[in-house]
Amino acid sequence: MTAVFSVTVRDHMMIAHSFSGEVFGPAQRLHGATYVVDATFKRVDLDADGIVVDIGQAAEALHAVLAELTYRNLDEEAAFEGMNTSTEALARVVADRLAEKVHAGELGEGARELDALAVTLHESHIAWASYERFL
Amino acid sequence: MTAVFSVTVRDHMMIAHSFSGEVFGPAQRLHGATYVVDATFKRVDLDADGIVVDIGQAAEALHAVLAELTYRNLDEEAAFEGMNTSTEALARVVADRLAEKVHAGELGEGARELDALAVTLHESHIAWASYERFL
Amino acid sequence: MTAVFSVTVRDHMMIAHSFSGEVFGPAQRLHGATYVVDATFKRVDLDADGIVVDIGQAAEALHAVLAELTYRNLDEEAAFEGMNTSTEALARVVADRLAEKVHAGELGEGARELDALAVTLHESHIAWASYERFL
Amino acid sequence: MTAVFSVTVRDHMMIAHSFSGEVFGPAQRLHGATYVVDATFKRVDLDADGIVVDIGQAAEALHAVLAELTYRNLDEEAAFEGMNTSTEALARVVADRLAEKVHAGELGEGARELDALAVTLHESHIAWASYERFL
Amino acid sequence: MTAVFSVTVRDHMMIAHSFSGEVFGPAQRLHGATYVVDATFKRVDLDADGIVVDIGQAAEALHAVLAELTYRNLDEEAAFEGMNTSTEALARVVADRLAEKVHAGELGEGARELDALAVTLHESHIAWASYERFL
Amino acid sequence: MTAVFSVTVRDHMMIAHSFSGEVFGPAQRLHGATYVVDATFKRVDLDADGIVVDIGQAAEALHAVLAELTYRNLDEEAAFEGMNTSTEALARVVADRLAEKVHAGELGEGARELDALAVTLHESHIAWASYERFL
Repeated sequence: MTAVFSVTVRDHMMIAHSFSGEVFGPAQRLHGATYVVDATFKRVDLDADGIVVDIGQAAEALHAVLAELTYRNLDEEAAFEGMNTSTEALARVVADRLAEKVHAGELGEGARELDALAVTLHESHIAWASYERFL
Repeated sequence: MTAVFSVTVRDHMMIAHSFSGEVFGPAQRLHGATYVVDATFKRVDLDADGIVVDIGQAAEALHAVLAELTYRNLDEEAAFEGMNTSTEALARVVADRLAEKVHAGELGEGARELDALAVTLHESHIAWASYERFL
Repeated sequence: MTAVFSVTVRDHMMIAHSFSGEVFGPAQRLHGATYVVDATFKRVDLDADGIVVDIGQAAEALHAVLAELTYRNLDEEAAFEGMNTSTEALARVVADRLAEKVHAGELGEGARELDALAVTLHESHIAWASYERFL
Repeated sequence: MTAVFSVTVRDHMMIAHSFSGEVFGPAQRLHGATYVVDATFKRVDLDADGIVVDIGQAAEALHAVLAELTYRNLDEEAAFEGMNTSTEALARVVADRLAEKVHAGELGEGARELDALAVTLHESHIAWASYERFL
Repeated sequence: MTAVFSVTVRDHMMIAHSFSGEVFGPAQRLHGATYVVDATFKRVDLDADGIVVDIGQAAEALHAVLAELTYRNLDEEAAFEGMNTSTEALARVVADRLAEKVHAGELGEGARELDALAVTLHESHIAWASYERFL
Repeated sequence: MTAVFSVTVRDHMMIAHSFSGEVFGPAQRLHGATYVVDATFKRVDLDADGIVVDIGQAAEALHAVLAELTYRNLDEEAAFEGMNTSTEALARVVADRLAEKVHAGELGEGARELDALAVTLHESHIAWASYERFL
């Protein structure tokens, strides 16, 4: 691979949760976070329209993934039972759910040519976490 | 007043809460937020050291106020019983608690000359709220 | 007035335009801009729900105002005939159109108690302009 | 005054300095800062071209003021002898020097109608200071 | 390669354009954008002066590339005939033109040792695109 | 490697220094900088607690590294004798000192599984530099 294109869209979610494990200190209490979420779509070549992915469809797909998480207490979601919903773990959840939508054709037929996907969750102005995977 | 100086310090808190009232829609569910908090201290003249307030003491005072709120479920805090902890309402809480510290001399004797105080809480990259008051 | 609350929501628009007048130099040519738009709503007291304005309705109102401007060549819009659509002039247009929506009750009945409105248009990372008015 | 327009331009400077006074702790040692500087020009009405001030002339004026300060050790500048070059004190220096340029006509004849000027110096991602004055 | 250094400089351009293809929806109309442009220069080792590239020369090279694009209607530029000037496609144009300048020695002799180049164009606070290539 | 997680923490330092070499122009004079510093920790798998590294320990480690540099004139530090403390060179210094702390177990036993480390120093709103290395 000699070069790579990417497109990123940003959205956010606001959730409650708590952590299990001494290492988390006061974050073991029920608290919450706004996650400003950046989803980056990567590919080696542009499609016939000259784009990586339709930015409108990318934004809708990200919004749909976040809509299933936002305004919720993640401690009560079956999908997260027995796991810590750390920022980095949630980055993977969002990335994997976006990957499913890519594979299902929800970002357009051309998006099936995407090579990789990265998701960054900003939890504050001084901390963020990412997960990057191939598609 | 022909001119005014100000100094701002930034910190953050991460809380859970829910809202009462139909207008809040899905935010009536238990969820959470990271608030990136800016506290601005204003005065007409600089003090003998050439400053508005010692930036170190200002940052410590803000951190102390936020330490009483962060990593908590605000729905269970006695101080907020019967009120919606909206972003704008919390901006006032932080500002009023900072004002008490100013009046108690915790930001230094010179800080008693401060004229006004503004607090902004950023709840996401697309929404924030402020409260400004005299001291 | 001893204190004031505010709530701000952010959105954006992407337009083409050109300017008339030697002072504008190369900006006399047809070019374009992304305006990241912040709309700030101000009032002295919170309403019965403990808010300045419903943030959802505020965001929808701003989006509706920007939807009439975005993805257009402002040089061909009748509303702007004979005027330069400078960043500061557009800030006023957005603010005045938002004010009409406030007065028409589109931001909720409580929003009629709003005292002032400020709109900031960011045209780049190094330049922005604002317009603030009473309601 | 029922409404006000403003235009802001951003630039930066990189200086060395030290402070006198116990309150400054380790900042009494020679150290340095990047100041990201925002200069805001305000007026009640737009000029005949539909602007607050020519953004190009405003940016040049700010750059000229900062060029006299940047890449210097402020402890050795005669202009600052006997004073602490705190962020808030430097905000006033920049604002007053910009005001001189406005009055000298360097921002254009129309800029003589400017009503006020505010300067903000960002010293880090968690601290900044401002000075606002009439013209 | 066990490690890599990089230096990034930021500038911007303001252009008008339109897109061809149903996928673009309302962006098929003539509109515009501010692109805040980050150019990142990468290399495995620092040069004899202890730098990746002279930041002043890098900023000048980026400014020169953007000067050929800014304040223009890209629909009328011969260089872009028959292509969509999407954010990702423009990122490649800027990167390739910077690469030519690197190879022509315009960023200094040492810059010929650069290994890769990445260009990011931010089209709004919620969307950006990148292109990265070897040199 | 099919995927990678990362966590980033942000802090800052404020230093004075000067550069040797004609290429640096006015930056050969004693001046200074605020560096906003991002430290990114990367690994292929999460640990038993579901995290990359404890964010509290990561922030403390970064703060400890920066505490040895901030509020100093780097020209007088023995560690930097004979080298230019360029932004990119300092990024390496911070990264290497953090790597030592990782290897010494100061970020927790689990952090010994970290695969790579990247450090970015922002010197202004328009320039930054990075260094990335394996652990």
